[in-house]
Amino acid sequence: MTQSPVRVAMLGTGFIAEFRAQVYRRLQGVEVVAVLGRDPARTKAFAERTGIGHAATSWDALMGGPGFDAVDLCLPNNCHLEYGLLAAAAAKHILCEKPLGRTEAEARQMHAAADKAGIIHAYGENMLYAPDFREILDIVASGTVGKVLWVRGREAHFGPHSPWFWKREESGGGALVDMGCHLIAVFNMLLGEEPTSVMCHAPTLHHATDCEDIALALLRYPGGTLGQCEASWIQRGGMQVTLEVSGTEGMITYDRSGLSQPIKVFSRNQTQRYFSEKVESDRGWLFPTVDEYWRYGYYDQIRHFVECIQSGVKPKVTFAEGVVVNRIMDAAYASAAAGGGWHEIAG
Amino acid sequence: MTQSPVRVAMLGTGFIAEFRAQVYRRLQGVEVVAVLGRDPARTKAFAERTGIGHAATSWDALMGGPGFDAVDLCLPNNCHLEYGLLAAAAAKHILCEKPLGRTEAEARQMHAAADKAGIIHAYGENMLYAPDFREILDIVASGTVGKVLWVRGREAHFGPHSPWFWKREESGGGALVDMGCHLIAVFNMLLGEEPTSVMCHAPTLHHATDCEDIALALLRYPGGTLGQCEASWIQRGGMQVTLEVSGTEGMITYDRSGLSQPIKVFSRNQTQRYFSEKVESDRGWLFPTVDEYWRYGYYDQIRHFVECIQSGVKPKVTFAEGVVVNRIMDAAYASAAAGGGWHEIAG
Amino acid sequence: MTQSPVRVAMLGTGFIAEFRAQVYRRLQGVEVVAVLGRDPARTKAFAERTGIGHAATSWDALMGGPGFDAVDLCLPNNCHLEYGLLAAAAAKHILCEKPLGRTEAEARQMHAAADKAGIIHAYGENMLYAPDFREILDIVASGTVGKVLWVRGREAHFGPHSPWFWKREESGGGALVDMGCHLIAVFNMLLGEEPTSVMCHAPTLHHATDCEDIALALLRYPGGTLGQCEASWIQRGGMQVTLEVSGTEGMITYDRSGLSQPIKVFSRNQTQRYFSEKVESDRGWLFPTVDEYWRYGYYDQIRHFVECIQSGVKPKVTFAEGVVVNRIMDAAYASAAAGGGWHEIAG
Amino acid sequence: MTQSPVRVAMLGTGFIAEFRAQVYRRLQGVEVVAVLGRDPARTKAFAERTGIGHAATSWDALMGGPGFDAVDLCLPNNCHLEYGLLAAAAAKHILCEKPLGRTEAEARQMHAAADKAGIIHAYGENMLYAPDFREILDIVASGTVGKVLWVRGREAHFGPHSPWFWKREESGGGALVDMGCHLIAVFNMLLGEEPTSVMCHAPTLHHATDCEDIALALLRYPGGTLGQCEASWIQRGGMQVTLEVSGTEGMITYDRSGLSQPIKVFSRNQTQRYFSEKVESDRGWLFPTVDEYWRYGYYDQIRHFVECIQSGVKPKVTFAEGVVVNRIMDAAYASAAAGGGWHEIAG
Repeated sequence: MTQSPVRVAMLGTGFIAEFRAQVYRRLQGVEVVAVLGRDPARTKAFAERTGIGHAATSWDALMGGPGFDAVDLCLPNNCHLEYGLLAAAAAKHILCEKPLGRTEAEARQMHAAADKAGIIHAYGENMLYAPDFREILDIVASGTVGKVLWVRGREAHFGPHSPWFWKREESGGGALVDMGCHLIAVFNMLLGEEPTSVMCHAPTLHHATDCEDIALALLRYPGGTLGQCEASWIQRGGMQVTLEVSGTEGMITYDRSGLSQPIKVFSRNQTQRYFSEKVESDRGWLFPTVDEYWRYGYYDQIRHFVECIQSGVKPKVTFAEGVVVNRIMDAAYASAAAGGGWHEIAG
Repeated sequence: MTQSPVRVAMLGTGFIAEFRAQVYRRLQGVEVVAVLGRDPARTKAFAERTGIGHAATSWDALMGGPGFDAVDLCLPNNCHLEYGLLAAAAAKHILCEKPLGRTEAEARQMHAAADKAGIIHAYGENMLYAPDFREILDIVASGTVGKVLWVRGREAHFGPHSPWFWKREESGGGALVDMGCHLIAVFNMLLGEEPTSVMCHAPTLHHATDCEDIALALLRYPGGTLGQCEASWIQRGGMQVTLEVSGTEGMITYDRSGLSQPIKVFSRNQTQRYFSEKVESDRGWLFPTVDEYWRYGYYDQIRHFVECIQSGVKPKVTFAEGVVVNRIMDAAYASAAAGGGWHEIAG
Repeated sequence: MTQSPVRVAMLGTGFIAEFRAQVYRRLQGVEVVAVLGRDPARTKAFAERTGIGHAATSWDALMGGPGFDAVDLCLPNNCHLEYGLLAAAAAKHILCEKPLGRTEAEARQMHAAADKAGIIHAYGENMLYAPDFREILDIVASGTVGKVLWVRGREAHFGPHSPWFWKREESGGGALVDMGCHLIAVFNMLLGEEPTSVMCHAPTLHHATDCEDIALALLRYPGGTLGQCEASWIQRGGMQVTLEVSGTEGMITYDRSGLSQPIKVFSRNQTQRYFSEKVESDRGWLFPTVDEYWRYGYYDQIRHFVECIQSGVKPKVTFAEGVVVNRIMDAAYASAAAGGGWHEIAG
Repeated sequence: MTQSPVRVAMLGTGFIAEFRAQVYRRLQGVEVVAVLGRDPARTKAFAERTGIGHAATSWDALMGGPGFDAVDLCLPNNCHLEYGLLAAAAAKHILCEKPLGRTEAEARQMHAAADKAGIIHAYGENMLYAPDFREILDIVASGTVGKVLWVRGREAHFGPHSPWFWKREESGGGALVDMGCHLIAVFNMLLGEEPTSVMCHAPTLHHATDCEDIALALLRYPGGTLGQCEASWIQRGGMQVTLEVSGTEGMITYDRSGLSQPIKVFSRNQTQRYFSEKVESDRGWLFPTVDEYWRYGYYDQIRHFVECIQSGVKPKVTFAEGVVVNRIMDAAYASAAAGGGWHEIAG
């Protein structure tokens, strides 16, 4: 085991980078030594706020700073490939935020470069590390619900904050790419296999964007299970994440939305207190999400990444899984573009 | 207003006939004077149990008994047309259990015959009379959630009791015909319009039947709303009915499943007490549905039918609505048979 | 059975009178022919709004109007005795809103007068007619939870609207008299017996009133069950009604609060729509109570009262039950006044 | 900061010791080097199961084994004082499971000995470290609900597993000592003060024990808040933990019971899988508690204890807090013994 702390360079200064910086501060044996951002002022502020020593606005400036072992790639989707290749070329381990690429082609290039460089590469699918989802995976594995016949996942809110999400050129797609990727990864892990065909409808119903703001994809799995993936940017009322599993002998229903939180608060006054990500009301009934960094899986995900670097062991979720998710989303978009029939997913 | 009570002949002796017989006993101004069933012993037992004076096993025997004003048509789907035509020919008012026909063609014949006979005809969509659904319709109408962008309905359990449901020849279809018809009717009422195209997947994933045991249909409405209709016969854990509405300014989520009932009971012993329709457990956590006949809308539906007969006013939900639902389901099956693309619904 | 409709005079024009007037309009075989109120303008408006033909502002004026069979006594607590005696003297049947009197002494006088007059007298404890509570009573009776060891009821909001509730001289007491009376009646019915001693704490914690704004009473029943009665006027967030039953073999938990309603609505805008009694927010998460007149038991209560008048049968819940509730509350106040020890309830 | 790991001796081999051993295995910088138990076979098995090197059955044997810095005192309540004094005399830091003593007198002796020895002493009130409760404390502190007028805590199940809990000589009391202590500690922390008087009823309603199997205590706080503490060993249906806070401007309701978990599972078959502490059903609806060691606060509690030892800082919750809780419980029992009136809590 490596005794000296793992040194990480954070790539990006957005919402998810901030979230993960909180986790690094809670972990032992790891240190964020540098951050890379486009905007100098913003990057400097991020570094100061999160206690990172070096703020760089170019890859060269980053490399010219203190040495580091790994990058945490939290840049917009259209920058994943470029910086993934740079990091691999520099033999830096990579934890890449979802989705791996805007397309399977991009994801494949990242995977190939990482494999060739012999680095540790981890795909940032936090849900696979979230305690609630691990429990569900374990319940299914225990046979409590019998053979899984149907599984539905849903993630919904009223759309992301950063402008790049809304431009297909930068994001690669809308609600499906942003949130559907989580659900597809969970389905694959739950069933232990990959779907062979997909049917999808992905229209833009409300927002001014060239991305879909709602996506509904059906996935056929070799074992006979039907997966139903729902991603929506047109749902008011805060973040909704649900999962339902229908088995021959039982079922599971999971809800991580505000109303399902164990703490429920009523306030007749306007309040400025933070309650949860994507909350849309500031009075009346409010529902805090406790320890989001823990419940959403970021803590265990990053801890696992650090341990893999220390021990040289391959992570449980690598770029290989990310490639598969991009492949399925490519096929889903092809189905939607063709008017919604079934499309094969080329293996 | 007619002063003498409306006299009804019950056609059928199954689950739904029993349910409705309970409602008739609670209502004033109406009386069930006869019942028609195929099996003599069963029909006689039904009549005795529910206090109906005349038990007939043929239409002629029914007509030869005490006079009546209306029939409550609760026979298997493949008998709707035959007995609908007989009743219309005899100038008896008709309340017909959902779906109106096995196909739009059958439904149209019933509608035409009823119109020609000048009788009161009501389509038995109880959900449109259920207090909870009426409240939701009213909330949407009040503008509380803005313009409706997406609506999802789901009805699920592990399959019906009577054998005829499972044979396409008799039922006309599986989960979609059995339960999807409810949701489609609710969507149409909620949006005040009919969908123009549908995309559907309706496989048989588990049961030994030539009907689909799960159906997922997407509906495009002229105003831009996307409807998502889910019907499942492969879900354990009792009856589930949910509705979700995403609007530009808000959302509604509704759940009528066991876990959402206000009364929750734990018993460590096996219990024989009735708790709810389709319950699959007899110990541990149990959830009673209080006053099912009221909450499911049967009370208000039948009362409205009786009042329409008394006053000669056209019911709020007639065979015309039933024809539309059958038309949409026909198109959904056509989409499913063609591999899931979008199909126009011929108006 | 009386064929002509039962004619009722409504005494009072407040919240509860309005509520009940809605029920009378839905029932067949009964008609509200007159209303009595103190304030002429308000009484006239009430009559017009609810379609009542005669508006009186004195007992004499009421008696001088159209004939009636019964009164529905919805006046402030300090008027129950006066008008109860007047009605009994005039041989009018009485349905009296809870509590029967401000004290057991008052309640006894009403009971004696009613019995002497030979009229039908019903104590207006709506919860004993509410479908949810009837279901709970039935579950307990079925043995599903074994022997009841402990039962807790709670009713809470932030205080009533009408000024008279807040003056002990007019109301007879605060939260205990206003809401605790419901719970005590439910306990007695659930257990089939009356408590023998009570311990109570009934302070004024927040509001400017000479009544208690929270009351906590423990009740010892002869069979060994412990009852826990909680009434609060200091709870924000809308109306809360809960009941919990601990038995040797199981338990029941019941919640009729907003968050437990099956319909949940989110609106980002301020809305003026009515959602439920005592709601304190007009945006964010809102929870409609569907068919309050039905779920709270008013419908079945009034229907039963009318049927008892028609058939001459004694109501299920009479002034006798009201006297018992007043007696228990008197003992609870005595305990609270003495610093909270156990007090015997003189039988 | 101490660089070498903190070495802990576990005192006890019961349920809570097992629970905490799981936490130690997840923490860095701490190591359990020995375990002390009465029964040789059981102690040996515990050591092997949890990977502890040294199994002792006497204090001398423990001291004769590998060196250690601290003890985690998880013995039955009647052993707290004896082993607390031994540990203090040996200058070992102490984390003592709740309650500190059977009585305030015992607790005071432990506190005095620990202070005199100059050791780090922590009172094992895990709820004060549980993420959910920390969130609630923070919401109250933020002013979201205004001034707290009333707070109720409840903890209930059908009684503990180990025989010593049921003997007053060994436990010091029943449900109040076992579970009420948690709630009192939470109230005190939430309000930032200690109650001045208490009223209590603590009968034995069902079990064969000389301890109370239900306890209801009202607590008056100097600032005017009323605390309501409920502890029950007579409630079926698994572990229930609830907290409700009524403030002038809002309220909080918290529920950590099975039905409030975000994952809900239905299984029609009997299952042997572990779902949660104190579950009483093995089929039907089941509710897993995810990461109990984290949600119940054990992780953060032990981590804090270890960090305090490393840094020499006084823990947030020390024996001083334990003494206060015992004092309040002594007064509660005095009130119950005297028939339930208010008793002063001598400061």
